[in-house]
Amino acid sequence: MKRRTALLSGAGLSLAAAAAARAQAPTRPGKERVVIQVSTPEQRLWNQALNYLENLRDTYGPDNVEMEIVALGLGIGVLKLESTQGPRVADAVKAGVHISACEVTMRRQKLTREDMLPNIGYVPAGLGQVIKRQREGWAYISG
Amino acid sequence: MKRRTALLSGAGLSLAAAAAARAQAPTRPGKERVVIQVSTPEQRLWNQALNYLENLRDTYGPDNVEMEIVALGLGIGVLKLESTQGPRVADAVKAGVHISACEVTMRRQKLTREDMLPNIGYVPAGLGQVIKRQREGWAYISG
Amino acid sequence: MKRRTALLSGAGLSLAAAAAARAQAPTRPGKERVVIQVSTPEQRLWNQALNYLENLRDTYGPDNVEMEIVALGLGIGVLKLESTQGPRVADAVKAGVHISACEVTMRRQKLTREDMLPNIGYVPAGLGQVIKRQREGWAYISG
Repeated sequence: MKRRTALLSGAGLSLAAAAAARAQAPTRPGKERVVIQVSTPEQRLWNQALNYLENLRDTYGPDNVEMEIVALGLGIGVLKLESTQGPRVADAVKAGVHISACEVTMRRQKLTREDMLPNIGYVPAGLGQVIKRQREGWAYISG
Repeated sequence: MKRRTALLSGAGLSLAAAAAARAQAPTRPGKERVVIQVSTPEQRLWNQALNYLENLRDTYGPDNVEMEIVALGLGIGVLKLESTQGPRVADAVKAGVHISACEVTMRRQKLTREDMLPNIGYVPAGLGQVIKRQREGWAYISG
Repeated sequence: MKRRTALLSGAGLSLAAAAAARAQAPTRPGKERVVIQVSTPEQRLWNQALNYLENLRDTYGPDNVEMEIVALGLGIGVLKLESTQGPRVADAVKAGVHISACEVTMRRQKLTREDMLPNIGYVPAGLGQVIKRQREGWAYISG
């Protein structure tokens, strides 16, 4: 799998295309905030969820969007040490994206933090986190 | 398939873990309310949707959350008589969860109430129910 | 695949059933508005998303609902020239549904408008469009 660095470099879209995309963004005071739920075991959908981060940064501009990926249930694997998405998750963490593993799921699957990618975050309950974000006004995307 | 009774017994999480999860819950007047859409034929995702009910009860406390599963389209099978999730659905109904089968889907698939699990509820249109819940302020989870 | 014309003819439900479904609709000033995200490569889910359009028209009445399908990522194929859903997409466009292909995805997949179904619409960023609709108060359905 080719490592994508577009999240950091912002090279995913041409500048003109990014500007066009940005012009579409709704007017909103402060940053746009988006929570993405990952609860599928399909690796192609994990890859897509990471693509979403790049697309959102291109759409709003890196300083204008706050993003969180919440991995839970059958989707927890995206954050495990052996995840195919390890390098991209690391890039996202460095770029300031909240990456949250569900501790309810980890207990169910007998996973410890040693089993998970380094530097990610943890939430006591992944669904609770998604709901909390909705209540705080974040847009919700099912990944 | 092992029958899970954690939804009724609240034994899915340790008490300490449940308290930690609950502390995360957003402050909100009255009960938290969550509608879960099930529209996939994948049985592993049906199982996961039922897990969600247990997790939400552990997160908010059983008296502090109102939950509804709306099964529609390719997900209607989760509520059919031969569903692998029959015992868990029965537990959820007993525990006060709204379990709603989409009657539009039932007509499309030539299903009658005799084909469905006992004691579940019915809504004239599953999508309409999901949208109604969103309008009423329920959090939305795509299962 | 049999071409469905129920979207135009409104014949998907009996009149009585449609009225029952409509009675369930939440009271809301103006039209109900619903955005459906299609981001899966599964053709059975593309078909289901098109079913949703018919169901929503039957639920609210054709003049009382505004609908948009946003196809992005792995779901872009639903709007490609060779899509199994071509005739149904054409019907939906004729019936006034917004059908939006994500131009970010098209660039990633080296698709031009010549590769896509005729008469569909385009948005600079599919996710941005879904988020914009949420901000504008549209109900959100993950297809």
